[in-house]
Amino acid sequence: MSAPVTDPIPTPSCPPPDILRCASAELIVTDLAASRRFYVEVLGLHVTEEDDQVIYLRSFEEFIHHNLVLRQGDEPAVAAISYRVRTPEDVDAAEAYYREMGCRVERRADGFVRGVGDTVRVEDPLGFPYEFFHEVEHAERLHMRYDLISAGELVRIDHFNQVTPDVPRGRTYLEELGFRVTEDIKDEAGTTYAAWMHRKGTVHDTALTGGDGPRLHHIAFATHEKHNILQICDKLGALRLSDQIERGPGRHGVSNAFYLYLRDPDGHRIEVYTQDYYTGDPDNPVITWDVHDNQRRDWWGNPVVPSWYTDASRVLDLDGAVQPLTQRTDSSEMEVTIGADGFSYTREGDEDGTYRGEASKGFKLGNQL
Amino acid sequence: MSAPVTDPIPTPSCPPPDILRCASAELIVTDLAASRRFYVEVLGLHVTEEDDQVIYLRSFEEFIHHNLVLRQGDEPAVAAISYRVRTPEDVDAAEAYYREMGCRVERRADGFVRGVGDTVRVEDPLGFPYEFFHEVEHAERLHMRYDLISAGELVRIDHFNQVTPDVPRGRTYLEELGFRVTEDIKDEAGTTYAAWMHRKGTVHDTALTGGDGPRLHHIAFATHEKHNILQICDKLGALRLSDQIERGPGRHGVSNAFYLYLRDPDGHRIEVYTQDYYTGDPDNPVITWDVHDNQRRDWWGNPVVPSWYTDASRVLDLDGAVQPLTQRTDSSEMEVTIGADGFSYTREGDEDGTYRGEASKGFKLGNQL
Amino acid sequence: MSAPVTDPIPTPSCPPPDILRCASAELIVTDLAASRRFYVEVLGLHVTEEDDQVIYLRSFEEFIHHNLVLRQGDEPAVAAISYRVRTPEDVDAAEAYYREMGCRVERRADGFVRGVGDTVRVEDPLGFPYEFFHEVEHAERLHMRYDLISAGELVRIDHFNQVTPDVPRGRTYLEELGFRVTEDIKDEAGTTYAAWMHRKGTVHDTALTGGDGPRLHHIAFATHEKHNILQICDKLGALRLSDQIERGPGRHGVSNAFYLYLRDPDGHRIEVYTQDYYTGDPDNPVITWDVHDNQRRDWWGNPVVPSWYTDASRVLDLDGAVQPLTQRTDSSEMEVTIGADGFSYTREGDEDGTYRGEASKGFKLGNQL
Amino acid sequence: MSAPVTDPIPTPSCPPPDILRCASAELIVTDLAASRRFYVEVLGLHVTEEDDQVIYLRSFEEFIHHNLVLRQGDEPAVAAISYRVRTPEDVDAAEAYYREMGCRVERRADGFVRGVGDTVRVEDPLGFPYEFFHEVEHAERLHMRYDLISAGELVRIDHFNQVTPDVPRGRTYLEELGFRVTEDIKDEAGTTYAAWMHRKGTVHDTALTGGDGPRLHHIAFATHEKHNILQICDKLGALRLSDQIERGPGRHGVSNAFYLYLRDPDGHRIEVYTQDYYTGDPDNPVITWDVHDNQRRDWWGNPVVPSWYTDASRVLDLDGAVQPLTQRTDSSEMEVTIGADGFSYTREGDEDGTYRGEASKGFKLGNQL
Repeated sequence: MSAPVTDPIPTPSCPPPDILRCASAELIVTDLAASRRFYVEVLGLHVTEEDDQVIYLRSFEEFIHHNLVLRQGDEPAVAAISYRVRTPEDVDAAEAYYREMGCRVERRADGFVRGVGDTVRVEDPLGFPYEFFHEVEHAERLHMRYDLISAGELVRIDHFNQVTPDVPRGRTYLEELGFRVTEDIKDEAGTTYAAWMHRKGTVHDTALTGGDGPRLHHIAFATHEKHNILQICDKLGALRLSDQIERGPGRHGVSNAFYLYLRDPDGHRIEVYTQDYYTGDPDNPVITWDVHDNQRRDWWGNPVVPSWYTDASRVLDLDGAVQPLTQRTDSSEMEVTIGADGFSYTREGDEDGTYRGEASKGFKLGNQL
Repeated sequence: MSAPVTDPIPTPSCPPPDILRCASAELIVTDLAASRRFYVEVLGLHVTEEDDQVIYLRSFEEFIHHNLVLRQGDEPAVAAISYRVRTPEDVDAAEAYYREMGCRVERRADGFVRGVGDTVRVEDPLGFPYEFFHEVEHAERLHMRYDLISAGELVRIDHFNQVTPDVPRGRTYLEELGFRVTEDIKDEAGTTYAAWMHRKGTVHDTALTGGDGPRLHHIAFATHEKHNILQICDKLGALRLSDQIERGPGRHGVSNAFYLYLRDPDGHRIEVYTQDYYTGDPDNPVITWDVHDNQRRDWWGNPVVPSWYTDASRVLDLDGAVQPLTQRTDSSEMEVTIGADGFSYTREGDEDGTYRGEASKGFKLGNQL
Repeated sequence: MSAPVTDPIPTPSCPPPDILRCASAELIVTDLAASRRFYVEVLGLHVTEEDDQVIYLRSFEEFIHHNLVLRQGDEPAVAAISYRVRTPEDVDAAEAYYREMGCRVERRADGFVRGVGDTVRVEDPLGFPYEFFHEVEHAERLHMRYDLISAGELVRIDHFNQVTPDVPRGRTYLEELGFRVTEDIKDEAGTTYAAWMHRKGTVHDTALTGGDGPRLHHIAFATHEKHNILQICDKLGALRLSDQIERGPGRHGVSNAFYLYLRDPDGHRIEVYTQDYYTGDPDNPVITWDVHDNQRRDWWGNPVVPSWYTDASRVLDLDGAVQPLTQRTDSSEMEVTIGADGFSYTREGDEDGTYRGEASKGFKLGNQL
Repeated sequence: MSAPVTDPIPTPSCPPPDILRCASAELIVTDLAASRRFYVEVLGLHVTEEDDQVIYLRSFEEFIHHNLVLRQGDEPAVAAISYRVRTPEDVDAAEAYYREMGCRVERRADGFVRGVGDTVRVEDPLGFPYEFFHEVEHAERLHMRYDLISAGELVRIDHFNQVTPDVPRGRTYLEELGFRVTEDIKDEAGTTYAAWMHRKGTVHDTALTGGDGPRLHHIAFATHEKHNILQICDKLGALRLSDQIERGPGRHGVSNAFYLYLRDPDGHRIEVYTQDYYTGDPDNPVITWDVHDNQRRDWWGNPVVPSWYTDASRVLDLDGAVQPLTQRTDSSEMEVTIGADGFSYTREGDEDGTYRGEASKGFKLGNQL
């Protein structure tokens, strides 16, 4: 693990590309058949195209070629995190922007994957394989194909979540790239533990979570309603795959969305997510959560399992090699909130359990385990 | 704590009363105002009558006077567990039945509480204050008062759950009283950990959970849909009372219902429950779960918090004194399933994690904590 | 059409059978493949057994062999309306009961259909082919097979609805057979238009609707939640079969259930139904609706289409011949509520539209068409 | 009614304002207390401010001062249709844009209503009182106040729908103003009956419906889930106000959203709407519906009541006088689809009812009434 990087990320003089939204990710999986069972048979994503090395999947309401690419490989990893940009010229803008930053950049007029045209991939300043494209084949939008909908249908890709050691450093870089912060988690000393930022008017297109990075924490898909998420759990139970449920379902504090975290056969984490809120106004109020607020990650105060804090997917450089990790030197959210050295509260300032006269116990987990 | 009781419960020669359903419970609470906030303001039960010592509450679809009585007292306890019987004569039958058993019995023609007529209360063979009545005042059934319905509305009382040391002993007694078992939890050695039994054609009107008893584990109310239960959690979060969520929400293995467990200001446990299944046929298939099946208590494999196993409400005798506890001598479900001496599986016989080629880890909790 | 029958139905001296619940129906369909598409591919009922002449279907939570039998025939009709009774002896009781009434009765020790044992079929006093059985093969109860559940899953058979000319005459007969009335529709002159009655503790196992009879108005299946019913509509739209939606979805006044009426390829009517209320107490309050109350059939005041009043399935006698119809002589609910001679109100006594100061128009349909 | 206007609308040389979203509307109501009952007590909108002449309301997730202004007046009308623009300078841009068009324009640095700053109001080329503002007071965003949420909560303002005689003329004007069309309804002869267009990445911020105009057809609010809309109907039934339900609930063909149309005490139409789809990509596929497709307005083929086609709210000019109407000369959607001269189909080309072998009847309404 390399030493922490603290140098600021340069701001290019040229304008950033106009990013529309998070669009797709490319995952390296070690057993394509097992992954197909998980994503197609269990989760019900729709196959746009596939062969024996790669599967292109899209969600129910998507009209672009894919939201997820599964590629057979030797080690689980993330090969690309892709955003769609507004115009073909925005791909040029992206190339120029990252070149001026000094990043390694690769441009392919025919794209890196099926169904996508002119694309630029970069090793971004945080070490992630970011991809920008505009040209894309359209696929049938299935949004009214209620003859095909499953009880736990995934209807849209919603966001990425990236692990990086220095959240403020990454946040500034992404804000300059055009993202706007909607919520974050801090402590009284000013440490930032995580930040959420968007382009498409929802709570996020991507988020930064503090930790050893670069790693991808998860990819999130949206459902229409909350019961769809419960059905995914019920189905995993029926298939005796409940151990692929890592955390939830629950209500997030941050984002206000209803959520569930799953682990795919390679351990890649998938979030299923629904019902956050509109954030498209430029003065959308930013919400800052106290890291010790026990409802920040789960509004119901249910505990976050340690694996959710510690595990994430490694990412590849443009040669396909795994990027080395840089260690987080700031405080760890897990350590400051659970276990011997951490603390959390349900009601700020409520130490003696007398709030409203009801049974008041502060941190729920501490009472349970 | 008294020594374990192992003598069999005598079977009366006279017929048991024809029990319709679980109908209400009387709880002793130590701060009536705090309890009112919880049951009326937070959970939205409807007040039929109240004064400064007692509150009578009913659920949205109920037409009898109450499903829950809250009475101010010095120590949290359960004063009565009440069943409605089919006819006035069934109250006579109940009195005769328990007298023949040698139980202490008290009959009051005017009832023990407001709104209920001729009633018999007994100290039953398991030590519980069972009550049987038929005559009852009708209250407005609110079932179409959608102007009054809340987003997390409790619509029916569903069942009780009682803690008793010797489950088979209690089960036989209740079967003779007319209950029919729908599901139970056992191990390969034949130990019974819990049993569910009904009168009204649902999975249960009451259940027996193995443990030091007599204690009342919980009282359950039903909602119409699953989102109603999620809303109760969301509301507790908004009120910064999330530490009153003890376990869930989740899908039960046993009963197949969607559930949530709350603790009231005195620690009395309330379950919110929806969507079990019809059991009214006499040959309704009984489901026996293996105590080591990690999906038996939560179909999604989410861990059961220890307090759920250890805590329960003490019950009163007919003089209002707390009944002494008898210790369970059979194995403890908590001990055989979690912690150093316990084990559970997600897939029976799946020890090496190769099931279906997916990531397979057996017991989820062990991997998390 | 034969002359109206007004002679009272005799009350047998022997006790009636103890009926558990509505259990299944046998429909004659003219194109078995088309019916299979509707019931299996569109509605998702589960095939227990089938050959080229007959298909046995059950709902998601059912453990008996079937809830619906589709049999190829020349004319659409209803061959049997089946109730399950509590014990084998109750089949004897049913046989004796109907024989004493002077009805034609046929007893078959091996049953009339696959999966069901000793059965009695009768031509009942209202002209319906009622069937009573206890012995039945068990099939896999799918209630936890969330890998098989569809977004619009039918989980239980709920009730029948029968058309008969003289509702009070039929009601008395069914009450003596053990049914209990939960709701009815009358007018100020005492005419009864319909009555709902149950055995299993829901609003009904069968209902009587006034009209030329004997005809079967519909068979109803239950879903878990309301969105499941909406999905059935969405799927029919996607399949361009929306003209099979006859009425709804909506909220019933009577029964308080959320409902939808479909017509199968032969015109047999299927209701999809969810969330009525518990009725198992003997003093369950009976609700009588005024026939002129515009919210009695649809709580939202949406119009009932005329076909819903006029169409129903003919029934067969025990020789397989279509039973002749007897004409209703009482007032027609359709005629007294819609069209030139009918009237309905939204607010009783609100003739001048001044209720609460809001826009008040009395009968909604009259303003729309 | 004035003669039809056919002159093209001029395109200004200056850039249009950057519109964020539909933000609010100002309605003139004739009985403020009655309107308050409808919008606050029945629908549950939240009062930001009020006095005896005006009430400012916002939805559950809104952070700007209001989404709806109710103002006491003599005649029901619409005083303003308001969009929020991205920056203060966009208000200047709006003023210049409409001045160059030759429209009457009024600019007020302190706004026209409470809670909103610098604003421009215009009489737009279609005769509507459009308003553009950026500066606005923030109110508490209630999005996590689950202690305040009702079972039928309105969480966002979603869109307007405007009636105008010449849809293509209006569409061009709005496209130049920056709106993008997502769906429309046409016939084989090229007549456009309606068009939907957006700014915020949903199916619409406003729509144009062909008819005598300018009139406002409706204002739409979003709920989280479909059951919330059903609850609004149930509540109106409980309050015996079901005659305020004009159409639905149902699934739209156009927009794919689940919908309900209500009429307020003055006849202003409110839509409740949920679950359309993301449209923010510039190449979002436009869907054109055939006016004869019976599933275009209701995916389930349920009939559109005539009042929905004929009624709409008159709009005011900047002096507060009612704008005169211009008559539609193109075909009427109502006339070409229902009644003696209209026709619709469920399955295009399916005239003989043989589609798939199922009962096939073409236009459902024709069979019902």
